[in-house]
Amino acid sequence: MARKDAAKLIKRSLGINLPAVERRLVAFIKRKVKEAGSEGVVVGLSGGVDSSVVVALCKKALGKINVLGISMPEGGVTNPRDVADARDLSNRLGTRFRVVDITPVVLGIRQNLFDFSVRARVPAANIKPRVRMTILYYYANLLNRLVVGSGNRSELRSGYFTKHGDGAVDLMPLGCLYKTHVRQLAAHLNVPKRIIEKVPSAGLWRGQTDEMELGLAYEKLDMIYVGLDLGLDPDSIANAAGVKIEDANRFIERERRMTHKLSMPEIPKI
Amino acid sequence: MARKDAAKLIKRSLGINLPAVERRLVAFIKRKVKEAGSEGVVVGLSGGVDSSVVVALCKKALGKINVLGISMPEGGVTNPRDVADARDLSNRLGTRFRVVDITPVVLGIRQNLFDFSVRARVPAANIKPRVRMTILYYYANLLNRLVVGSGNRSELRSGYFTKHGDGAVDLMPLGCLYKTHVRQLAAHLNVPKRIIEKVPSAGLWRGQTDEMELGLAYEKLDMIYVGLDLGLDPDSIANAAGVKIEDANRFIERERRMTHKLSMPEIPKI
Repeated sequence: MARKDAAKLIKRSLGINLPAVERRLVAFIKRKVKEAGSEGVVVGLSGGVDSSVVVALCKKALGKINVLGISMPEGGVTNPRDVADARDLSNRLGTRFRVVDITPVVLGIRQNLFDFSVRARVPAANIKPRVRMTILYYYANLLNRLVVGSGNRSELRSGYFTKHGDGAVDLMPLGCLYKTHVRQLAAHLNVPKRIIEKVPSAGLWRGQTDEMELGLAYEKLDMIYVGLDLGLDPDSIANAAGVKIEDANRFIERERRMTHKLSMPEIPKI
Repeated sequence: MARKDAAKLIKRSLGINLPAVERRLVAFIKRKVKEAGSEGVVVGLSGGVDSSVVVALCKKALGKINVLGISMPEGGVTNPRDVADARDLSNRLGTRFRVVDITPVVLGIRQNLFDFSVRARVPAANIKPRVRMTILYYYANLLNRLVVGSGNRSELRSGYFTKHGDGAVDLMPLGCLYKTHVRQLAAHLNVPKRIIEKVPSAGLWRGQTDEMELGLAYEKLDMIYVGLDLGLDPDSIANAAGVKIEDANRFIERERRMTHKLSMPEIPKI
C-alpha cells in the first residue's frame, strides 16, 4: 500500500467521536457499579492524564461524593507537583481526595527481602504498583466500592503495566482507548492542559518516562497498533508511522510475549 | 433421584486416579515453565496441605534447585509450628526455603491508612495475601521464575481467596482439584500426615479456620460442587451430602457472586 494511503487510514482511525465515547464510558461505569451492588469507586490518582480522565468520567457517572481519589506518592521518587495536580483536579471536580504515603511500606518490604545479588531495579520497582493496588483495595473493601484503573489500550497491548499491580483493578474504562485517544478525551473533559502535556511516567523510579522505557513515543506506538487493527502489513505500518520496521516488529512481538499479563492463572485440565 | 444413588454418584466422582493426576500436573508445570522461558518457580508455603502438595509437584517437575518455597509468617497470627512444618517439608524435599516476616510491612501499611470508622477486619486481613503476592513476585521477577499458587477448585468455586492476593499467580496446578482430591494426592505424595490432617486456615487472623468462615466442612462443600458438576438438582445434592438445602443454595449463589474474582478487569467496547 502506498505510504500516504496507509498514513491516511491510520490517522482517520485515531480520530474518535468524543461526545459519544464519553457517553459510553460514563454509562459503562454507572452500569458496572450498579451491577456489582457497589456504593462507588476508588481511583489511584497519579496526577497524570489517564487517571485524571478516569476520575472525571467517574464523577459524571456516579456523582462527586461516590468517587474517592487516592494519591500514593513515594518520597524521593514522586514529584510533589504530581500530588498537587491530583489534589487540584479533585478540588475542581469536588471528588473526595486523600494522600497515602507509600514510602514506609516500600522500605519495610525491601528491608525484609534477602539479597540474591543480581540486578534488582525492575523487580524492586514492581513492588510499588502492587503496594498501591493493596491500598486501593483496602479502601474499596472497606467502603464497598470498586477499584477503577487507568490502564489504556496502548499500555495493555504493549504489556506496559505491572501484573497484579496497576493492572489489577475491577474496571478499566480506558482499556479500549489508545493514549492518543485519552489525550483527546482529556481535552474534551477540560482536564488542565498542564496535566495533558505532562511527560508520561509510571513513576517507578526518579526520572523514569514511559517513552524512554518503551523506546518510542506513544503517538508512534498508537499508529503501529492502529495499523495492525486495520490489517495493514508491518512494512506499510512502519512507513506510515515513520518508524523502523524493527520497531514495528518489536511491538508485535512484545504484544505476544505480554499476553500472560492479561490472563487469569493457568489451570490444568484433568 | 433416590438419596442413595446421588450419594453413590458423588462419592464415585470424588475418587481420582492418583498416579495419573500426579503425572498430568507434573507435566503441566514442566510445560508451562518451559513455554514461559522461565528458570523455575516460587511458591508461598503456609505449612498447609495445598502448598505442600504444590511444592512436592514442582520438585518432581523441575528438580529441587529450581523450586524456592517462601514462608511468610505474621507475628501474633501465624503459628510458628506452620513455619517449622514448611521448613521441614522443604528440607525433606531438598527444595530451597526462605522465611520473610510480613509483620513490619502489614504494620507499615496499616499505620498509613486513614480511618473511616467502619468495621475493617476483612479489608485489613486482605492486605496480607496481597503483601505475600508482592513478595513472591519480587523473587519471581528477580530470578526469572513463575509464581505457582496453591488455590484448589473448592476455594475457586466458592470464591474463598483474596482477589489479587493468593489468587494472583501465574500457574494454579491444583485449580482443577477439590480439597478432597488434594488431601488424597497429598497422601499419595507422602506429605506428612500432620500437614494433611491440619485444620485448614487462610491465616488471616489468629484462630481463623476456613470451615468456620465457610460455615461448612470442605468434605460437604465438595459433595455439593461435584453434585452440581454431575447435573444433579439441589435437593438431591443436599440430601446426598447431608446438608440443608439452604446450604446447597448458599454455595450455588456464592459461586455466582464471586465470579468477578476470577475475571480480568472489565473493559468497555466503543
